[in-house]
Amino acid sequence: MNFNDIQRDAVYEAIHNRRDIRKFLPTPLEEDKIRNILLAGHHAPSVGFMQPWDFILVTAPEVKHQLAEAADKERRALAIHFAAEGRDDKFLAIKVEGLREAPLTVCITTDPTRGGDHVLGRNSIPETDILSVACAIQNMWLAAYAEGIAMGWVSFYKKSDVRRILNIPPHIDATALLSFGYTDEYPDQPILEKSGWAKRQTFENLLHFNSWDNKEKKEGSR
Amino acid sequence: MNFNDIQRDAVYEAIHNRRDIRKFLPTPLEEDKIRNILLAGHHAPSVGFMQPWDFILVTAPEVKHQLAEAADKERRALAIHFAAEGRDDKFLAIKVEGLREAPLTVCITTDPTRGGDHVLGRNSIPETDILSVACAIQNMWLAAYAEGIAMGWVSFYKKSDVRRILNIPPHIDATALLSFGYTDEYPDQPILEKSGWAKRQTFENLLHFNSWDNKEKKEGSR
Repeated sequence: MNFNDIQRDAVYEAIHNRRDIRKFLPTPLEEDKIRNILLAGHHAPSVGFMQPWDFILVTAPEVKHQLAEAADKERRALAIHFAAEGRDDKFLAIKVEGLREAPLTVCITTDPTRGGDHVLGRNSIPETDILSVACAIQNMWLAAYAEGIAMGWVSFYKKSDVRRILNIPPHIDATALLSFGYTDEYPDQPILEKSGWAKRQTFENLLHFNSWDNKEKKEGSR
Repeated sequence: MNFNDIQRDAVYEAIHNRRDIRKFLPTPLEEDKIRNILLAGHHAPSVGFMQPWDFILVTAPEVKHQLAEAADKERRALAIHFAAEGRDDKFLAIKVEGLREAPLTVCITTDPTRGGDHVLGRNSIPETDILSVACAIQNMWLAAYAEGIAMGWVSFYKKSDVRRILNIPPHIDATALLSFGYTDEYPDQPILEKSGWAKRQTFENLLHFNSWDNKEKKEGSR
């Protein structure tokens, strides 16, 4: 826990430069790098140490194809809502082809029964199970960055479709689809920022001090 | 995106050695380190780039005291369920004093209205807002590790209590309480593992290949 500047800066570089990637090269991924990335996920914090995650590794072309079809169906369905806001063109340009192109897609799941009836923390806040899985996703993203591998998180699909395609039991949540591959386009800004879809929030506007309604930091208040 | 071995290993060290800490020293935290940690949270991925987080920085002793009381009340209430499983002693030993001791506690919140009516991804999977906030939590945890600062995620409290104490509006979710401080006890294993509360899952048991029911990796399947 005593990082020098190079080590500290490496963590920050991964955190700040990590991007959501949707375009992948067919170059195969090394087994040891995949294992490192998945292990980083497994070593995420989990509330009550419940470790509610499973990893379904999708490499079979026909399964990738079915996942891509499911995402594309949802993309077209959503476009109808965005059209009503006059934003459909930009939306439709966002590719789900990554699911077909990426050498590996991982469906990370949440098992709400893992750890028994009374898991510390989940007893109070039931959604701590999926929050733990999201921590695992972020670990995998940063690990992928450290390995020089791009990751994309696909979040439009109907869970019932993914459950059917991957034979996931009814009580297991298909929390996210994560595509991994090498890429030759790693942008310096989020793609949704670059495309003008959304802006980054001003950091200072998100800070509150001791109370939601106090946005001015007082001297000596910390 | 071209890390050398030292940079890559730094990311993995932070991921694997990060622990949930509940005991803090009163040593003040440096402003620039706190800012780095919060910025790491703000640079988390968010589905549809919605950035649904806010950060309420709690440093006032009377507010910390109220949060600790709320957590302790919930801890005692939960102990009744664990007693029925014969696990109350171990549970009651888990401290919530960290909320009182830590120089800084951050309540990270989720605003489900951020980004308007139709946020990309949240339209399909509504909980992507809290999943994004969990990614921010993990970024903050790793950033804190890189800064030599310990973090603890308190997840037992009633959200209505925290909302009242911090004057959080009804539509905003009080997703997590995160305590930060220096510590002289940074264990090499999760405290719940060390105390015998729970075991780490065997990694290989969590892997599936192309289908939930296929746990055997076939040659050439990747």
